Amino acid sequence: MRITTLEALAEKIKSCRDVTILTHSHPDGDCTGAGLGLCYYFRSVGVRANVKNSDGFPKLFDFLTDGYQDQEFEEKFVISVDVATPELLGDSLSCYAERVDLCIDHHRSNSGYAKDSYVDGGCCAACLIIYELLKLLGAKLTPLIADCLYTGIATDTGCFMFDSTGPGAHSAAAGLMEAGCRAAAINRRMFQIKSRGRILAEHRVIDTMTFSDDGRIALIAVTNEIIDGCGIDRAELDGFAGIPLSVEGVEIGITLKQQPDESYRASVRTVSADASAIAARFGGGGHIRAAGCTVGGTKEEAARAVMAVAAEYL
Amino acid sequence: MRITTLEALAEKIKSCRDVTILTHSHPDGDCTGAGLGLCYYFRSVGVRANVKNSDGFPKLFDFLTDGYQDQEFEEKFVISVDVATPELLGDSLSCYAERVDLCIDHHRSNSGYAKDSYVDGGCCAACLIIYELLKLLGAKLTPLIADCLYTGIATDTGCFMFDSTGPGAHSAAAGLMEAGCRAAAINRRMFQIKSRGRILAEHRVIDTMTFSDDGRIALIAVTNEIIDGCGIDRAELDGFAGIPLSVEGVEIGITLKQQPDESYRASVRTVSADASAIAARFGGGGHIRAAGCTVGGTKEEAARAVMAVAAEYL
Repeated sequence: MRITTLEALAEKIKSCRDVTILTHSHPDGDCTGAGLGLCYYFRSVGVRANVKNSDGFPKLFDFLTDGYQDQEFEEKFVISVDVATPELLGDSLSCYAERVDLCIDHHRSNSGYAKDSYVDGGCCAACLIIYELLKLLGAKLTPLIADCLYTGIATDTGCFMFDSTGPGAHSAAAGLMEAGCRAAAINRRMFQIKSRGRILAEHRVIDTMTFSDDGRIALIAVTNEIIDGCGIDRAELDGFAGIPLSVEGVEIGITLKQQPDESYRASVRTVSADASAIAARFGGGGHIRAAGCTVGGTKEEAARAVMAVAAEYL
Repeated sequence: MRITTLEALAEKIKSCRDVTILTHSHPDGDCTGAGLGLCYYFRSVGVRANVKNSDGFPKLFDFLTDGYQDQEFEEKFVISVDVATPELLGDSLSCYAERVDLCIDHHRSNSGYAKDSYVDGGCCAACLIIYELLKLLGAKLTPLIADCLYTGIATDTGCFMFDSTGPGAHSAAAGLMEAGCRAAAINRRMFQIKSRGRILAEHRVIDTMTFSDDGRIALIAVTNEIIDGCGIDRAELDGFAGIPLSVEGVEIGITLKQQPDESYRASVRTVSADASAIAARFGGGGHIRAAGCTVGGTKEEAARAVMAVAAEYL
């Protein structure tokens, strides 16, 4: 069933006991922050809760998991956060696909797989939903919970830069800073610091940039050769998808990232075109200005295929 | 005299008639937004007002000056915004050096040259002071005034990324978005879009990066050869000062920019050291994490000199 008001969601949350919270695989800042923030809230009001994902949390977020330990209990309620479809739970959590009690998400494309779902597709981050939920619940925001939620809102909005950023994101950031989140340190870690390898990789990736349709479409390719050659971690590739759209005149930016199995995953970013529609043509999905899909073939074949479809959406 | 409360500043503003507002030379987003925002406010309440600076407003900000025209009146009151010392007014406004009635500024280093000064050194942007002032005055924020103030707050905080960003900056952004500012378009223009020449220039500048003190100090040099070779405008060099500090492990980042007269201007950015103290050693100044100064000698001499002083502040 669809839960349509935050008040109804809050009522549901109040009745939860012995909760397992699931995030999507390859966890990013938003699902990590939302999962842990909600978990720390439950624990703060005496409700046992754990967070699980298929891959473990990346080292990048260790300031949020520092001190986190699984609790022992028999799970009575399962919540997924920021998980649009059960496939995104990943292999080791696929057993949960049909037994999620409550899904809290901000993807319009949410498939409604959970028993109950609260989906706010207009919200820039799952963490913003959790923030507003906790405020409604009258929760005391500890600095750690504030760090979790700030991390998700900041990363999903590109530090308040993307079109998805609304006044609510800024109001939440103000509230989270007042609650003691370490915004400056988080910003530096998420957005400013790059390893020398990452800077080198950006360098090499920019050399791969190609344009089509009078410079309105740009594409870069991040190959395993570049990743391995520069000695960087795949978690460091996050910001790369923004590079093509940063070039003046580009309306659709495509980033091909070669996967460990050699296939290509495309990130599509747009100024005004519907990115999720482009990704959907390859079986992918996402948001209206940022979406992703897997594309078959060699690098050249994948590039041609995505650029051709993108051109239809100019 | 120092004006110490926003309330006293508001009283002063209420009594102003026929106002000339001055900003610093080489205007950036903050002084442009603060000057124009205040001017549009005065005009909205029937007070005649103009904005002047030594260089004219850069094309980058034409969405704020679109429709702006000087009014005819005999000037009765002079306000400077975001101008720490009279020298910063630049050559063509130097006649005003000793006749500024009121200075509104956020530089701790403000020299107190005006008859009355309101200086909030803890504030991330002059535009944030103007926002809080207008709120106190009960002003109706038009979308254009909101665009002005958002531009200044966003540019002076690096889109809410720098350490100087406090909860007040986010609260103001939320209020300005509710007042109709075009945040998404402004962010894209200020932070996301780069010309192909600018991307090429970044490329070449990163090749000039040198390190000292076990990688804790990094320096890049933007020479006239790079600027001319890539065909970019000097106004496009703004973000370059952040590059050295973006490298993992770097605590003090120095950017040398060659000037049209071949001298070097150094931008100093720091994680925790006092940038304004480093700049002051060369007769410059600024904020605690971002400051600037002019350094004599060749590129190599300037680099050695600034790196040596910076090392004392590690």
